[in-house]
Amino acid sequence: MNGLLTDLYELTMAAGYFAAGKQKDAGIFEFTVRRLPKNRDFVLTAGLHHAIDYLLNLRFTPEEIAWLKELPNFRNAPAAFWDYLATFRFTGNVFAVPEGTVLYEGQPLMNIQAPLIEGQIPETFLLSAITFETLVASKAARITHEAQGRSVVEFGTRRAHTPEAGVLGARAAYIGGCAGTSNTLAGYRYGIPLMGTAAHSWVMSFASETEAFRELQKLLGDRTVHLLDTYDTLQGAKNAAALGGPLWGVRIDSGDFLDMSRKVRKILDDAGLHGAKIMASGDLEEVRIAQLVAQGAPIDAFGVGTELAVSGDAPSMGAIYKLVEIESGGEVRMTAKQSPDKKTLGGAKQLFRLPDHDVLALHDECIPGAEAMLKPCILRGRLVQPLPDAATIRACAQAAMSPWPVAGRRTILSPKLEKVNAGLA
Amino acid sequence: MNGLLTDLYELTMAAGYFAAGKQKDAGIFEFTVRRLPKNRDFVLTAGLHHAIDYLLNLRFTPEEIAWLKELPNFRNAPAAFWDYLATFRFTGNVFAVPEGTVLYEGQPLMNIQAPLIEGQIPETFLLSAITFETLVASKAARITHEAQGRSVVEFGTRRAHTPEAGVLGARAAYIGGCAGTSNTLAGYRYGIPLMGTAAHSWVMSFASETEAFRELQKLLGDRTVHLLDTYDTLQGAKNAAALGGPLWGVRIDSGDFLDMSRKVRKILDDAGLHGAKIMASGDLEEVRIAQLVAQGAPIDAFGVGTELAVSGDAPSMGAIYKLVEIESGGEVRMTAKQSPDKKTLGGAKQLFRLPDHDVLALHDECIPGAEAMLKPCILRGRLVQPLPDAATIRACAQAAMSPWPVAGRRTILSPKLEKVNAGLA
Repeated sequence: MNGLLTDLYELTMAAGYFAAGKQKDAGIFEFTVRRLPKNRDFVLTAGLHHAIDYLLNLRFTPEEIAWLKELPNFRNAPAAFWDYLATFRFTGNVFAVPEGTVLYEGQPLMNIQAPLIEGQIPETFLLSAITFETLVASKAARITHEAQGRSVVEFGTRRAHTPEAGVLGARAAYIGGCAGTSNTLAGYRYGIPLMGTAAHSWVMSFASETEAFRELQKLLGDRTVHLLDTYDTLQGAKNAAALGGPLWGVRIDSGDFLDMSRKVRKILDDAGLHGAKIMASGDLEEVRIAQLVAQGAPIDAFGVGTELAVSGDAPSMGAIYKLVEIESGGEVRMTAKQSPDKKTLGGAKQLFRLPDHDVLALHDECIPGAEAMLKPCILRGRLVQPLPDAATIRACAQAAMSPWPVAGRRTILSPKLEKVNAGLA
Repeated sequence: MNGLLTDLYELTMAAGYFAAGKQKDAGIFEFTVRRLPKNRDFVLTAGLHHAIDYLLNLRFTPEEIAWLKELPNFRNAPAAFWDYLATFRFTGNVFAVPEGTVLYEGQPLMNIQAPLIEGQIPETFLLSAITFETLVASKAARITHEAQGRSVVEFGTRRAHTPEAGVLGARAAYIGGCAGTSNTLAGYRYGIPLMGTAAHSWVMSFASETEAFRELQKLLGDRTVHLLDTYDTLQGAKNAAALGGPLWGVRIDSGDFLDMSRKVRKILDDAGLHGAKIMASGDLEEVRIAQLVAQGAPIDAFGVGTELAVSGDAPSMGAIYKLVEIESGGEVRMTAKQSPDKKTLGGAKQLFRLPDHDVLALHDECIPGAEAMLKPCILRGRLVQPLPDAATIRACAQAAMSPWPVAGRRTILSPKLEKVNAGLA
């Protein structure tokens, strides 16, 4: 099924754990935001839906197992390992922060308690699925924050790292605050509001721009958006104004947005089209949008593609997935990496949120008055409750970001967690 | 099927073309590298396999059509449009440069001749699929070039923008020159050499590092790679040296690679393990690798993840897909955008490659002594011949990059192409 969608070393280790008689050992793995992405004061989490779906459906087909067997890495793997893989299921527990949660540097996002092998194999998939969607949701949060109430529509599938990443990115962008997406499948699959009217090819396919605009109005009525810059933006605006309504508005896709939006606004207003809106698109991101808003550009909506779809200024983040506890033969041991620049904290942890700071504590501590942020998602291999839909998550995310999160919010380690880790170093 | 994996406006335009009686019109669309990615002198193309597979299988299911019908954009779409979508197939011609081709700014990658609607709908998918894989192949080319013959292994799935992008990225990285990948599914699906042994969790799961190393050797024999930096790199090297062979070598995943590789080399040599290799991994890219090579670091192989998987310094590129010709009622018209900063060249084109420069000409010109780079892939909706496998493409790419492509190679427009476009402006 999707068992092979992982790094080979996860499967090599699985065979090794099995060979070493550790298949009954229990591990606790933690997914942590080790370093914030560049230019970010926090991340807005997304991707849990994808991670959970993966864990619930993780399997190995007979064909996949037959193929694995022939790889040189598995030459010495015990025969019983292949029987084990044939009936492999994820049977562990997953605690995670809900999608749409604000997290800071060093905070855990997910905690997996499972037989060692079951916790090891998913590492690669979980890191990729959650990190990517979190990056896009976080970028969308910044962009929509700077748009100060103007709509931002996600237009980036054509720049996403694969079309399917465009679908998942559209969902993450919506969670982060976008009003909708151009990605049709994201609308079908996740119920995200869809937007999109016509491209330059539409205009070029007709003998004249006016004919192209008129045909679009016939189809779309008051949802019509005329794309103005195929030949000449201001002439395009005049052609649109001459036709009048029905009309949602116009879109400017190139040039100096401040100057053009003012001139186009005047052309529309002079024609009495005061209700017609102006959308701008083309190489936009939060810095440029903040400038346009500050300059008072008469732009009602922004279409944002490339920079949002790939989180252009920060296309990766330092998330890690590490073994923090192991139980072998009834004995529990906390584990941590001691590499000088990549030290980790041992022990299964819980993140407690208080009004003005967070506390990172051992998983079984209780901090009065705080919210325990890692919540049960899967117990003994079964989903605890259906995950919320994208609109619900978006609303939670908006609440979590009001007021806008403070940079450098404090995370304190609990005395117990400090003590345990002092013993590991 | 995958019909909805596109921007809504492609489908809106499809309905509009249909409503305007243009469903018999033929369009020629061109996929062009408008601007090279940041820091690149050329791109190495990849992703055609994905694009072709999509075009051959592009369909709309009855459920998808029923859902589309209810969207407000389609309120005025003619009823016959839905029958049209139900039997939709791509029936056109596709000309493209093979995967593993070197392209420069302004050069066409693909040319699609099809009924207008069939050429319009795929725009979004094709841009995403081809652009992403081309970015990764191009990044891999730079990295492996700087490694000067040392192996580079792709380790980046955990940082890819979705796990599936990791699989496709692994293939593209291999085409670009990587020796292999850690992505198991990329090995299964595309036959790419696989590498990967054990992570820090392996070491931490045993009571001692020595025990972890010994168990790994039992499993992997002469493919064993000991990961040294879980606790202390030099102590790790001593522990590995004390055990001796069988061994491929060791991996250093953090710290100062120059200093550490020298010290680890000495420890291995002092133990008589002259054949044991050293691999370095962790935040590597072409600039750092070039430094390490220049400094003579005794590193035999590099594992490269994040920066390769997301093409970190250039996670997007300005590729465009534009209508360049339209045939309506027997009359052919060339089309071009005239927006000041986003002008396109009208007319279906062919890219001719000569030893020291390229010529961009009309599709039906003949340039003696030149290779016509856009080759037929699909004719009348059918695959012309099976696409080559990844290993074959990789070999062609290596040949295309020997000698290393010159920055700023000239592309000349043919007089006919110049003349046609002078008439369009």
